[in-house]
Amino acid sequence: MAAEENVIIIGKKSIADYVLSAILIFNEGYDEVVIRGQGPNVSKAVDVYNALHNRLKDGIELVGVTIDSIERGRRLIPIIEIKVRRKII
Amino acid sequence: MAAEENVIIIGKKSIADYVLSAILIFNEGYDEVVIRGQGPNVSKAVDVYNALHNRLKDGIELVGVTIDSIERGRRLIPIIEIKVRRKII
Repeated sequence: MAAEENVIIIGKKSIADYVLSAILIFNEGYDEVVIRGQGPNVSKAVDVYNALHNRLKDGIELVGVTIDSIERGRRLIPIIEIKVRRKII
Repeated sequence: MAAEENVIIIGKKSIADYVLSAILIFNEGYDEVVIRGQGPNVSKAVDVYNALHNRLKDGIELVGVTIDSIERGRRLIPIIEIKVRRKII
């Protein structure tokens, strides 16, 4: 689905931590960051996007949102990937 | 954001219930259904989409996913809207 180093996998850390991770990735020179959440962290991935957007305002734009699922045993686990691009102003 | 009658707001009912709601909306003649979840139901909205897709396979296509937030008190609540279109085969 997405490359590695610019992908943030949402887990138990705070939303602010993931926002900081995204900013650090942009500062490393990446133009795009992917925020990936699965299961109950799908909601949190959207939270992280919203917090990042509030922080950087027009400095970023939403490239797109993809949703999918993975099978784990007999259950389907929902996945979201939110791709964000840094705008050159 | 979206019109009323073809919007499914995800709450406490089962995923299967919401899949049935979507099928009923298509059967009423709507070509598009919007699956809307907020807060912890963002993940469940993706679950409903995946279950609907598994049920109807190529009978539907994903039009797009939008994410947003609403302010409630001082908190930002995440929102997702998943728009699905019935394919005429």
